[in-house]
Amino acid sequence: MTGPEALLFDVFGTVVDWRTSVAREASALLGAGLDAPAFADAWRDRYQPAMEAVRSGQREWTILDVLHRENLQQVLAQFGFADPGPGRLDELNRAWHRLDPWPDAVAGLARLKRRYIIAPHSNGNIALLVNMAKRAGLAWDVILGAEVVRAYKPLPESYTRAATALARTPGQCMMVAAHNSDLHAAQAQGMQTAFVPRPREHGPQQTSDLAPTGEWTVIAEDFEDLAAQLGA
Amino acid sequence: MTGPEALLFDVFGTVVDWRTSVAREASALLGAGLDAPAFADAWRDRYQPAMEAVRSGQREWTILDVLHRENLQQVLAQFGFADPGPGRLDELNRAWHRLDPWPDAVAGLARLKRRYIIAPHSNGNIALLVNMAKRAGLAWDVILGAEVVRAYKPLPESYTRAATALARTPGQCMMVAAHNSDLHAAQAQGMQTAFVPRPREHGPQQTSDLAPTGEWTVIAEDFEDLAAQLGA
Repeated sequence: MTGPEALLFDVFGTVVDWRTSVAREASALLGAGLDAPAFADAWRDRYQPAMEAVRSGQREWTILDVLHRENLQQVLAQFGFADPGPGRLDELNRAWHRLDPWPDAVAGLARLKRRYIIAPHSNGNIALLVNMAKRAGLAWDVILGAEVVRAYKPLPESYTRAATALARTPGQCMMVAAHNSDLHAAQAQGMQTAFVPRPREHGPQQTSDLAPTGEWTVIAEDFEDLAAQLGA
Repeated sequence: MTGPEALLFDVFGTVVDWRTSVAREASALLGAGLDAPAFADAWRDRYQPAMEAVRSGQREWTILDVLHRENLQQVLAQFGFADPGPGRLDELNRAWHRLDPWPDAVAGLARLKRRYIIAPHSNGNIALLVNMAKRAGLAWDVILGAEVVRAYKPLPESYTRAATALARTPGQCMMVAAHNSDLHAAQAQGMQTAFVPRPREHGPQQTSDLAPTGEWTVIAEDFEDLAAQLGA
């Protein structure tokens, strides 16, 4: 198989540690008494159902910042908080713009960029991904993702439209993710695949995605190992 | 006025010297006998009419690579060349992916990137802008432009949608261009503006855009001067 020309990265969980970062932001804004990891988990639990309303066509196209904000209002109520008002709501919602990268991510991406086009292909919207990249130092060549292709993963067209935007075939692209489901969906559209486990994404008790469950093109320990295996 | 958070750059003529680069590519592929600058000009002359068919709604959304390729077929016929076949046609069409930056562009952008979000907001499509940036070393934070916002400049929605994609108001964005018309259109939507003259874009006989024709926020000699004036 010919090597890829472009590497498309899942972001939440694969490039950045959303759980620790959101918990930190929630603690800072809501007070130290909060069970912050539980708050982060509860917020994230509403992520797939909110996107599913868009994927199914029940709801018109809506970017993730808007879905996150609606979900945040529900989680705040669930945890017994009063409505904090639009300013503080927006500030906390932008916690997802301030996620910290895993320790190997920045250096690994910089190394991969020398040889490949590197792009986030995330369900995050453009502003979220740009703000995150500026803060964290993620040296993307181009921001792809749901807002650019107008489809949430794992819809098939999410992957094929990303390749088309780069004027590449799916086979010239490699999806990089810590989630087997993302890779299965990308592979079904003809993309190459790389699995990078992130066994603490969901905290110390994580049980999912600890190991590859498919025939992936590459299985790497982290982004530095991915760069080494891809000759970058 | 508060300074901008994001700088949006026109690309063809403002960041890169399309005429010299296309002439070089055309000579290389079509032979030394060609009047290569005239060929580049003739190809570029068909640029606005082709986009106008899309802007007016007469034609459905179509990316610039496709428009460029149709225009190329017409210009080849105009210059007396036989159809070179799809492979050579694509190769020459991708001349627009291999444009050289003006001498100050790479260093100026790198400097501006330290303080601002920098993005191309061009009528070029995503693949064209990514391939150009990788080859030339343009350190964009995000690729915006017509394909992302689904509208060709100078339509008003081209500018407003670009700001929205960054979760900024138009006033938090500054359009940077060597073309007064682009800045007039951006300013009408509330953007800040920077004029950087490129008096050789159209060759030694250029008569257009030699001087600012509006009340622009900044007038800079080149991108290094723009960085200096913007405190980057």
